[in-house]
Amino acid sequence: MSKLSSPIDALRDLGLLVTNSIKSGEFPVLRIPDRGTANIVFDNEQNQFVLGEKVTVRDSSNLRHVRSFAQLLWVASYAKRLLESGRTSSLRDLYYSAEAFGITFKDQAESDRTVADLECVIGFPREDLGIFPEERSSIYGAVRMRYTVPGYEGRMIDLTLSPDGFPIGPALVTAEPVSTDAELILAVESGGMFSRLIETGAWRRFRAILVHLGGQPPRATRRILRRLHDTLGLPVYIFTDGDPWGMHIARVIISGSANSAHLQGLTVPDAKWIGVTPDDIRQYSLPTEPLNDADLRRLDELAHDVRYQNDECQYHVREFKTLRRKAEQQAFSRHGIDFVVERYLPDKLTA
Amino acid sequence: MSKLSSPIDALRDLGLLVTNSIKSGEFPVLRIPDRGTANIVFDNEQNQFVLGEKVTVRDSSNLRHVRSFAQLLWVASYAKRLLESGRTSSLRDLYYSAEAFGITFKDQAESDRTVADLECVIGFPREDLGIFPEERSSIYGAVRMRYTVPGYEGRMIDLTLSPDGFPIGPALVTAEPVSTDAELILAVESGGMFSRLIETGAWRRFRAILVHLGGQPPRATRRILRRLHDTLGLPVYIFTDGDPWGMHIARVIISGSANSAHLQGLTVPDAKWIGVTPDDIRQYSLPTEPLNDADLRRLDELAHDVRYQNDECQYHVREFKTLRRKAEQQAFSRHGIDFVVERYLPDKLTA
Repeated sequence: MSKLSSPIDALRDLGLLVTNSIKSGEFPVLRIPDRGTANIVFDNEQNQFVLGEKVTVRDSSNLRHVRSFAQLLWVASYAKRLLESGRTSSLRDLYYSAEAFGITFKDQAESDRTVADLECVIGFPREDLGIFPEERSSIYGAVRMRYTVPGYEGRMIDLTLSPDGFPIGPALVTAEPVSTDAELILAVESGGMFSRLIETGAWRRFRAILVHLGGQPPRATRRILRRLHDTLGLPVYIFTDGDPWGMHIARVIISGSANSAHLQGLTVPDAKWIGVTPDDIRQYSLPTEPLNDADLRRLDELAHDVRYQNDECQYHVREFKTLRRKAEQQAFSRHGIDFVVERYLPDKLTA
Repeated sequence: MSKLSSPIDALRDLGLLVTNSIKSGEFPVLRIPDRGTANIVFDNEQNQFVLGEKVTVRDSSNLRHVRSFAQLLWVASYAKRLLESGRTSSLRDLYYSAEAFGITFKDQAESDRTVADLECVIGFPREDLGIFPEERSSIYGAVRMRYTVPGYEGRMIDLTLSPDGFPIGPALVTAEPVSTDAELILAVESGGMFSRLIETGAWRRFRAILVHLGGQPPRATRRILRRLHDTLGLPVYIFTDGDPWGMHIARVIISGSANSAHLQGLTVPDAKWIGVTPDDIRQYSLPTEPLNDADLRRLDELAHDVRYQNDECQYHVREFKTLRRKAEQQAFSRHGIDFVVERYLPDKLTA
């Protein structure tokens, strides 16, 4: 199904397709882009995963398809009611809500997959339907956003008002960036680093909007990074722990994940991983831990990952393997509590 | 050491005690309340754990004490610098910062324990010294708070400004509640429920300040609950999943934990667990899962826990054992997305 003007139009279109089939005495049939690994390809031009040409047919005349067909339509109707009433729902709520309608899912994994199917069908991410996971990242900085959620429409919020930052929840993800005094976006992995950069005034010094990732961030966080980048024209820098997992947090922000190959608008292809790189670990004499077996296995996987087939990524993977050590962001504190603000970030953000 | 007027005075007092000993040619000796399990007793009057009379002597003339003595003094000096510069630090940052001063900790567990020792010595919780863990809960509601952190001193924030809520970070924990239109505090376990209560306007209907716990909440969350309760005179209700773990989240808010037996001001003895109780599971015909082995073991532990030696707690434990099922907060969605707001909470908050 092609991308329509709005999620509600897309849902209506899906409903019409089904009811029109029934009215003309036919079993409705849906053609859904196939999300199986065999149909996920890396598009070098877009620098992200996309789906190939393969489609899955879901035919309501086929008894084996009836269950998943009904589940999909129920999720669509649930999403329509959310949109019409200006509500949001967690993925978990959606799973439990199904029971009230006599629709059963084996477990939440099944309802989550059905939500992803619906995303494929209508061409909009679930966040546009008001469906979110429970996790939240945070944001802080000199940017004004205009809310669009019911009860807050048109209200502006300045993201420096709360010195603890703001959670990136349903309201902020759908808010419109209006204006900013910042010149860059700095996404950081740990909450400690996020707080440090706020309270030292580093956000002002670097003219940075700060985003706390907290590990692999929820998709809403990747969306807000992309939106701030596009709307305000700000470059994105990513500062993580110096290990394969931190490096990969940055890579997913830059090139996306296979799980979201059916979605656009989640990647920031020109975002930059500033570290902690293996070179940084050496150059700044950081306290380290040895890479464990899981770390080393992960490095091997990443070496063959399509997203790492460029000189810079291969270099970092190789250097981690040579060094066989890792270091956290907090490790800079060995040189004093302000070292990261006084030395490391100036080095990296002007490089 | 007795409770002094301010954390910085308490740190100075500790410093003087040490330097005065040295000046008079003696090895400084510290007497620290013993935090071992044998010295933790439940005070029925205060309805919380407290430390007994036993003290640990840390004698700097004893070679086996020198290491922990030096670690404690370093943490005290680190805390003093934080306070003087108006900074905060994560526990992790503190661990890494030690290296810069030639102080080593075996692991973060050791530095965390040393921070708890310092809390015992000076009689103030680490939050008063600017030392926090990375986790954050959230809060939302009709309450105005006045910040005290540097750069924001005296600035007011209205906790309805952000429809996603506010993180309970260092700035909010140290802010002063100024005024409120709310009549109660409703602490909920899951983020989905927290969002639901905001966007349905349930917070307005129940005149509730909402707090998102997210499992066993960080200590800062228990502090803000206590402070809002004391300052604004609001009753506290706790709404968790219907399982032993949810029930125990409520119990720790009410009666504290053994780990914080050396601290006051973290409990809300008259807070009330409103559910999901085993009776609720039956009465509202909630979809359930069977209790697993870990759940059943936990119930046995709780049955013998000093904090559960009252009729109400024993009743809930027994009913869970009879029912052998559990249900999540989200399970109310089976009766419709607004059932929890329209039926369950009115039933429980007016009971």
